[in-house]
Amino acid sequence: MAEKGILLVVSGFSGAGKGTLLKALLEKYDSYALSISATTRAPRAGEQEGREYFFKTREEFEAMIQAGELVEYASYVGNYYGTPRAYVEEQLSLGRDVILEIEIQGALKIKEHFPDSVLLFLSPPSAKELRRRLEGRGTESREVVESRMTRAREEAVGIEEYDYFVVNDEIHACAEQVHGIMQSEHARAFRSQALIEKIRSGL
Amino acid sequence: MAEKGILLVVSGFSGAGKGTLLKALLEKYDSYALSISATTRAPRAGEQEGREYFFKTREEFEAMIQAGELVEYASYVGNYYGTPRAYVEEQLSLGRDVILEIEIQGALKIKEHFPDSVLLFLSPPSAKELRRRLEGRGTESREVVESRMTRAREEAVGIEEYDYFVVNDEIHACAEQVHGIMQSEHARAFRSQALIEKIRSGL
Repeated sequence: MAEKGILLVVSGFSGAGKGTLLKALLEKYDSYALSISATTRAPRAGEQEGREYFFKTREEFEAMIQAGELVEYASYVGNYYGTPRAYVEEQLSLGRDVILEIEIQGALKIKEHFPDSVLLFLSPPSAKELRRRLEGRGTESREVVESRMTRAREEAVGIEEYDYFVVNDEIHACAEQVHGIMQSEHARAFRSQALIEKIRSGL
Repeated sequence: MAEKGILLVVSGFSGAGKGTLLKALLEKYDSYALSISATTRAPRAGEQEGREYFFKTREEFEAMIQAGELVEYASYVGNYYGTPRAYVEEQLSLGRDVILEIEIQGALKIKEHFPDSVLLFLSPPSAKELRRRLEGRGTESREVVESRMTRAREEAVGIEEYDYFVVNDEIHACAEQVHGIMQSEHARAFRSQALIEKIRSGL
């Protein structure tokens, strides 16, 4: 039987490069699977059922909530978004590390249901760089910039709840670092119980 | 100011290759420092004060105990062995990762005094291989083999207390893995407080 996979939850400031990191990990290593969210939002052009999202009606989504089929869910601009439990558990049991991109409230819910999950917060290299990205090219209105700043301040509140704080300066180095973190996590003693017991029983 | 170093405590079965691992890490990377023990045992031929050990008289050693200058100490075959606190703290504040090879009781004392330390247990790849090493070349008496077995069973009891369980199959791969673990540990959110605060205050 394959060793169980690890659930990796990735959060971080807007503009930290979360999407690029996930893409890099999935392209470079076949040990990862991306968790696919369920949503009641309508598919956009080019989006495929089961690739970008599992598209659900409001009734279907609420039935999933009732049946406990979602690890976490939230409502955003009038639509539901949630993480189906079955897909995550299936991939983990196949020994794949499942990546989930989600904000802090969802991340903490995940940690509650999957205490062995790894929470990682991604950040640009400096406050100055973060501010530069939030301010955009100077073409944004003051209101837009200010709302991004407020959002970033909110995102920054929970960083201490995360296991790792990773700086994305250069995407390839960053992906390597995150992959290194996952390899190290696989060497944690509590994840090696089966091997430890096997060696112990041979003494 | 350099980021603070991490205290790495290495334990493991006899014959797991702890000494070889330490040597490989110290030779390959200059970010590590080896913690040097104090002892009341007499220097052996070729041993140097401050290299293999800090050699102390019984009176000096007991004064160090009284003054709280040892993180942990134990008595073994009539001699004291202990870990001087000053050297460890000095190296950590210089940003070096300090490696300490010690058995479980000492390791747990270290974790008490340095809760941020990393405890790593090293093992041969299998029970069969461990047994083979413990049995030696078949030239050992049954008593010697049996006492090694007893010792290994004792060593195996506390593995769950360790943070990491690392298999030493091939020493270079093993050293790389341990170095990867230490790099990942440096990315833990609780070790990145200064950087997190800096970014947060810039928002």
